[in-house]
Amino acid sequence: MKLYDYPRAPNPRRVRIFMAEKGLHIPLEQVDLASQAQFDADFARRNPTHTVPVLELDDGTCISESLAICRYLEVLHPEPALFGHSALEQAMVEMWSRRAELGGMIHAADVVRNTLPFFVDHALPGVDGGVPQIPALAERGMAGLQRFFEAFDQQLAEYEFVAGEHYSVADITTQVTIDFAGWCKIRVPETCQHLQRWHQAVSARPSAKA
Amino acid sequence: MKLYDYPRAPNPRRVRIFMAEKGLHIPLEQVDLASQAQFDADFARRNPTHTVPVLELDDGTCISESLAICRYLEVLHPEPALFGHSALEQAMVEMWSRRAELGGMIHAADVVRNTLPFFVDHALPGVDGGVPQIPALAERGMAGLQRFFEAFDQQLAEYEFVAGEHYSVADITTQVTIDFAGWCKIRVPETCQHLQRWHQAVSARPSAKA
Repeated sequence: MKLYDYPRAPNPRRVRIFMAEKGLHIPLEQVDLASQAQFDADFARRNPTHTVPVLELDDGTCISESLAICRYLEVLHPEPALFGHSALEQAMVEMWSRRAELGGMIHAADVVRNTLPFFVDHALPGVDGGVPQIPALAERGMAGLQRFFEAFDQQLAEYEFVAGEHYSVADITTQVTIDFAGWCKIRVPETCQHLQRWHQAVSARPSAKA
Repeated sequence: MKLYDYPRAPNPRRVRIFMAEKGLHIPLEQVDLASQAQFDADFARRNPTHTVPVLELDDGTCISESLAICRYLEVLHPEPALFGHSALEQAMVEMWSRRAELGGMIHAADVVRNTLPFFVDHALPGVDGGVPQIPALAERGMAGLQRFFEAFDQQLAEYEFVAGEHYSVADITTQVTIDFAGWCKIRVPETCQHLQRWHQAVSARPSAKA
C-alpha cells in the first residue's frame, strides 16, 4: 500500500491526520504539484482526475478522493471509529463533515485559488490550465467563511468536538479548512471563542503535525 | 420519522430515490422553497443551514444533508447496499459519489444558480439574499459539466453502473446531476453514448419517479 501525497496540499493532509489518529503508517510517495506532476501520464493512469491523495493498493488498484481513502481505512481498522459507531452517530459525522466541506472547505478553496498568483489560470484543481480566476468568487468565499466560522462556533459552544462528544473526520475537515484559509491570512475571528478553543485543542494533538 | 422535502429540488430527490430503491416509505412534509419557507424560524430550528432535505426522528432529532440521511437509512436497512459491501466497494462508491458531486453536481449548481432569474441575489443555497450571481462562474460550470460528461462516459464504457458492477448512491447523484443540468437545457452530448445508455436505464427504474 502506498499513498500519493503532497505535503502542503490540504486534501492529502486530511488523510495523513486520519492515519495518525488511527496509528497507521503507510509509505508516502510525493507528487510534485508545484511542477504540475499530477498531469504526467504516469500519475493520470492512477487518477484521471489529477488530484492527490491517491491510495495505491498492492494489486495496483487506486483509490482517490480523501474521504474515500479514509472510509477504506476505517473498514480495515475500525478503532478508534472516526466515522461514528451507531446509525445516528454516523449520520451526525456525515452531516457535520459535509457542512465543513460544502460550507467551509469549498469557500476556502474559492478564496485561495481565485486569489493567489500560483493559481492564475488554474483556479480549479485537476484541470491543466484554461480556468481563469474569478475575483467575485473569492469575495463570495470570504463571506461564506465568516458564516462557517459563526455556525461552527455555535456548535462548539455546546459540544467538545464538531460532530458532538467524539473526535471524528468532521474535526479533521474543519481543522484543515481553517489552516487552508490561513493561506490567505484569514483567521478565526476573536468573537468565535469556542471555535478558537477547539482549534487550539486539535492543533495540539500529535496528528496535527502529520 | 418525517422527511422535510421539496419536490423540484435536486437534493431531496436524492433521498427520495434512495428510499424508493430500498422500498422505504417515510411521510413527507413540504417546505415551500418558492416562498422561502426554509428561512422561517420553525424550519431554522430543525436545520440552521436552511436546506432541504431534513429527516426528523420521532424524538425530534434532525438530520440534514442528503447523504447523511442516506447513510442513516443504510445502517437501519442495510439491503440492498447502496454504499457498497466490502472495504474496496465502499471506497469505490465513495470515490465515484464524490466525483459526481464535486465534479458534476457543483458545476450544475453553479450554472443553474448563477443563470436563472429565480436565483438572482440568492446564488447560494441556505443564504437569505445578498449573494449576487456571477456569470463567469456559470461559464466555468458549463465547461466543468462537459468534462464530467466525458469522464463518466469513459467509466460507463467499461461498467454497467457508475461505481462498477452494482447500482449505488453514486448512480443517484449522477442521475440527479444530469437532470438538474437540464434546468438550463444542458444535455448529455451525443458523443457520450455510454452515459446516454446509462441515463436511459436509470431513468427507467421505478425510483426515477420519486
